[in-house]
Amino acid sequence: MANLYAVIMAGGRGERFWPLSMDTLPKPFIPLLGKNSLIQDTVGRIQPLVPPDSIFISIGATHLETARQQLPGIPADNFIVEPVGRDTSACLGFCALHIEKRDRDGLMLALPADHFIRDAEAYRSTLRTGMDNLEDATGVVFGIQPDRPETGYGYIHAERPLSPADAWPVVRFIEKPDAPTAAQYLDAGNYFWNSGMFLWRNRTLLELIREHMPELDAGLCKLRPLIGREENDRKIAEIFPELPRISIDFGIMEKISGLRLIPARFGWDDIGTWAALERALPADADGNICRGSHATLETNNCILYAQNATVATFGVTDLIVVEAYGKVLVCPKNRASDLKMLVKELGK
Amino acid sequence: MANLYAVIMAGGRGERFWPLSMDTLPKPFIPLLGKNSLIQDTVGRIQPLVPPDSIFISIGATHLETARQQLPGIPADNFIVEPVGRDTSACLGFCALHIEKRDRDGLMLALPADHFIRDAEAYRSTLRTGMDNLEDATGVVFGIQPDRPETGYGYIHAERPLSPADAWPVVRFIEKPDAPTAAQYLDAGNYFWNSGMFLWRNRTLLELIREHMPELDAGLCKLRPLIGREENDRKIAEIFPELPRISIDFGIMEKISGLRLIPARFGWDDIGTWAALERALPADADGNICRGSHATLETNNCILYAQNATVATFGVTDLIVVEAYGKVLVCPKNRASDLKMLVKELGK
Repeated sequence: MANLYAVIMAGGRGERFWPLSMDTLPKPFIPLLGKNSLIQDTVGRIQPLVPPDSIFISIGATHLETARQQLPGIPADNFIVEPVGRDTSACLGFCALHIEKRDRDGLMLALPADHFIRDAEAYRSTLRTGMDNLEDATGVVFGIQPDRPETGYGYIHAERPLSPADAWPVVRFIEKPDAPTAAQYLDAGNYFWNSGMFLWRNRTLLELIREHMPELDAGLCKLRPLIGREENDRKIAEIFPELPRISIDFGIMEKISGLRLIPARFGWDDIGTWAALERALPADADGNICRGSHATLETNNCILYAQNATVATFGVTDLIVVEAYGKVLVCPKNRASDLKMLVKELGK
Repeated sequence: MANLYAVIMAGGRGERFWPLSMDTLPKPFIPLLGKNSLIQDTVGRIQPLVPPDSIFISIGATHLETARQQLPGIPADNFIVEPVGRDTSACLGFCALHIEKRDRDGLMLALPADHFIRDAEAYRSTLRTGMDNLEDATGVVFGIQPDRPETGYGYIHAERPLSPADAWPVVRFIEKPDAPTAAQYLDAGNYFWNSGMFLWRNRTLLELIREHMPELDAGLCKLRPLIGREENDRKIAEIFPELPRISIDFGIMEKISGLRLIPARFGWDDIGTWAALERALPADADGNICRGSHATLETNNCILYAQNATVATFGVTDLIVVEAYGKVLVCPKNRASDLKMLVKELGK
């Protein structure tokens, strides 16, 4: 049996969770749901399946120190530093070079660092099912069964297998749909949310890049002899910006056949905005999600997050109120996804 | 001409401006409108008319130190400490004893410590007009010409004088009216808001108390020989709780004749709630009143007050957001007058 390596992708900016997350402390590193940060939760969740020595953290140079502090159990060599962000194809290709150096026959499990998983045991069981189904597949994707006509996610169209125990053959990857289409997908039952979690042989990923992304492949060929030696960091930093900035969905997944989908039923959310907290945390009797010191009176369906202050609300509904790092945010839940507009305004 | 003494009443609690004001720092002592606290503004406004030596500050024992720090120009002996609050009749009666000790023929100008006055020059001019009209009156009251059918204030019904330059004879004091009555008062033109500002001969006030409030008079007679000597403070503290707890409006003003009213047109507000700030401070182009560090986007007609943090709002209307002393308040403007309900909840 091949060895399993996990790659946890901790890229991304902090705008949608301002003021708790910022460019200096993006979403994976904030304690959004509990005492641990999201990346600490992600690492803790996968550890029973993958030993720390086999967990790689893909990280931007500016956040390396934070990541190391938050994840003291991960060996220093397992932090794979991207000199600049070049989206998920380059990220995973670069990580594949690191795994290849360690184990030419390894499996790569690619995981976002900042998603919510309700049932960790079911999650690991699903990943094991994925491994069991990799044998005769190009790769395995984990698809989330939709419970609402969400227009904010990409979808994966899959074929119902003959036996319910089998993996679902993937038909195609689909970009974010409009609302009527999303409603059709929900009804159809064989359209899944793309969770961004993938499993494949490490070698297969590098072959797929060679076949479908020759420009990225050329860059990786230059990088291959350089990795793993600190004195080469400057050269890596020179080459990295040349890599194409393309997502793995667009660069690889949408183009290939032979993918299998494992339906995931472990309670998942990408927690894309403050408003999404209500899908991950329990509400009080008035429907409020409260973290930190707070007092509410005649307050319904609000999301309150207090880092240091006490947040007190009176006579309000459907509001987000966040206090962190000397900032206070007040905005309606239905504007949470536009928060970057405010952050942009603040930057002026 | 008799000497004028000002008595600035700095009683009251802090609930309606929580979290900026609190029991430990009530409304007169907070910098609500600018860099100065409201009592500092009040003292500064009256000083061109009354020298510091003739300004008395009526204050509760717990707030004496704060008052002295904020008003270094007022002589130490001019802080008149009430051992316990006993409403305005006892407050002004006790102050009258202090003035009597200094000057048996003095005039007392009684002023609340925490009101907003837009035009300080017009204000002093109005007070001078009051002094000019005291000669043949029991006392002079300053009435605010209503500009809205306000139900939160007491009213004074006065008779239009034969000459516009004359003072208006007072008909009667009226408790807070219901909305239709307030609308009638507004239309009538000879009903004024009771500003709580009074002028009379100090001696007259003591005579009126003797005539209309014998119980208070009995207490004052016990206090008279004790005041002005620190060693008597304990005795004063024993007697004070016996004084009746009655407002000057109810105890004296509603019962007496011969009062004259001077219409006040200097821009006045008692700033009773956070929502009232919009009558005292200029709004930005979106109708927001902002104090302290703030950022607004798609925000209209809100009141934002930040003591230390930056308050950022996005997509909200008619809200109050206040940050002070490690607390954050969020409530709609139309609930501002019920804020004590939230403060009570917080006390639990």
